[in-house]
Amino acid sequence: MELWYTEEQTDSVRFSAKVKRHLHSEQSPFQKIDVLETEEFGKLLTIDGLVMVTEKDEFIYHDMITHVAMATNPAIKRVLVIGAGDGGTVRELTRYNTIEKIDMVEIDEVVVKVSKEFLPFTASKLDDPRVNLFFEDGIKFVEGKENQYDLIIVDSTDPIGPGEGLFTTEFYTNCYKALTENGILINQNESPYYPANAREMKRAHIKIREIFPIAKAYQYFIPTYPGGHWLFGFASKNLDPVRDFNPEKWNSLGIKTKYYNTELHVGAFALPNYVKEMLENAEK
Amino acid sequence: MELWYTEEQTDSVRFSAKVKRHLHSEQSPFQKIDVLETEEFGKLLTIDGLVMVTEKDEFIYHDMITHVAMATNPAIKRVLVIGAGDGGTVRELTRYNTIEKIDMVEIDEVVVKVSKEFLPFTASKLDDPRVNLFFEDGIKFVEGKENQYDLIIVDSTDPIGPGEGLFTTEFYTNCYKALTENGILINQNESPYYPANAREMKRAHIKIREIFPIAKAYQYFIPTYPGGHWLFGFASKNLDPVRDFNPEKWNSLGIKTKYYNTELHVGAFALPNYVKEMLENAEK
Repeated sequence: MELWYTEEQTDSVRFSAKVKRHLHSEQSPFQKIDVLETEEFGKLLTIDGLVMVTEKDEFIYHDMITHVAMATNPAIKRVLVIGAGDGGTVRELTRYNTIEKIDMVEIDEVVVKVSKEFLPFTASKLDDPRVNLFFEDGIKFVEGKENQYDLIIVDSTDPIGPGEGLFTTEFYTNCYKALTENGILINQNESPYYPANAREMKRAHIKIREIFPIAKAYQYFIPTYPGGHWLFGFASKNLDPVRDFNPEKWNSLGIKTKYYNTELHVGAFALPNYVKEMLENAEK
Repeated sequence: MELWYTEEQTDSVRFSAKVKRHLHSEQSPFQKIDVLETEEFGKLLTIDGLVMVTEKDEFIYHDMITHVAMATNPAIKRVLVIGAGDGGTVRELTRYNTIEKIDMVEIDEVVVKVSKEFLPFTASKLDDPRVNLFFEDGIKFVEGKENQYDLIIVDSTDPIGPGEGLFTTEFYTNCYKALTENGILINQNESPYYPANAREMKRAHIKIREIFPIAKAYQYFIPTYPGGHWLFGFASKNLDPVRDFNPEKWNSLGIKTKYYNTELHVGAFALPNYVKEMLENAEK
């Protein structure tokens, strides 16, 4: 017998991976969580049937969601992470001795429980003493907070289901207020390639650029997401990720990475024309 | 009834696209050629069952295979294109008024015939007066040529079937000889993500770097190829694609592109660490 997992990336495009074993399946109060052991990608976590993390390429996602901000401002001490239940974002953050506090707010405790059991490669640092885990709604968590974090990372699913409220003007405004003077907001900013993702990419960008003086996007190659060409948003109150970036400083830290490097940092902001135009011309 | 095309990208990964119509199928003396009309990608050309070109994203491939070299050396006048039967590479080259001659050598006349009929969006410039079409083996075509071309573009399939000889030391050596003093060789250099592609990526790179003083690789996002993260090789006798690159000069030409721009030119050479290490540590 052959077992295959298939994701419907659009109504007319499918991505399929051969499965060795279906390791786990669980309906949380929020979503359906599955873990597969695949031939090509190792362990693969899906939420509501969509690929979230794979053992083979999670390093790409987690390098890019953390190191670009940390390299732009190595003085970051207090970090808020929203979502990120698999633990990979926190794992990368804990590599910086200079970080003093990481608050991680994941709405779905089951994602963390499942990740600790099946994805130790990402969940390995959730017990770092600097990490405070909150199983709450990230949207409510940031409400009313002022000047508390140097970095907020919104490591969310797509804007459907529990992730939806993380793509609103109100939420981004609350993030702005919760950030310190040199604060940086990194958000999962979807993809330009398939129309449904591109629509959400534009919607998130126009909201953020109305709130933050600096609002850019940077790209990364992630083969297990639809189209393989995905973006993170980089928004900040003061710091420009290219102009204010000091590569020597980050390189002096000696942090070994499998994807990120300081040349790629700059290159990631060099978007193709069709993506630049989509972002620049995006309208409400 | 639903009709789906499926490519087995590896033994355990499949990519499927919903098909409106199967427009054409033909066995040439060299390979099986099919044209599909798909929902998501428009027209899609396959050779031996593998995606070669799609209407939706061919602009990415053709921008990157031509403009990086042309922007590095705007003085290029004589160009040899090997493969490229769909015509997209020639289409982009003909946009440079400074190019005087384009010799295109495609082993399989049927690919050109089919492209002219079904893919007018790529084949549109094959009748440009500067273009000379040769339906011959590119490997034999370059043998014995000396100092004749400023640019050679090897726009090949994977190194199986008729494309295999385009990945040999002998062929690359003949290209070196056929190039002028500032000559540049661009080759389809496979992908780092899936092991079979990565093996060919490394093999091509180690051969080329033994022959050319400058041998680099640059990346592009191409969602319809396996993994979506593919490379072209940039090899040359003298010119470095970043150090000797003059963005103002290329921008002054006023060539409008949907993917390529001069910032992305530099960014494309900023490879992830895992790719850099694969290339640097590649051994025969």
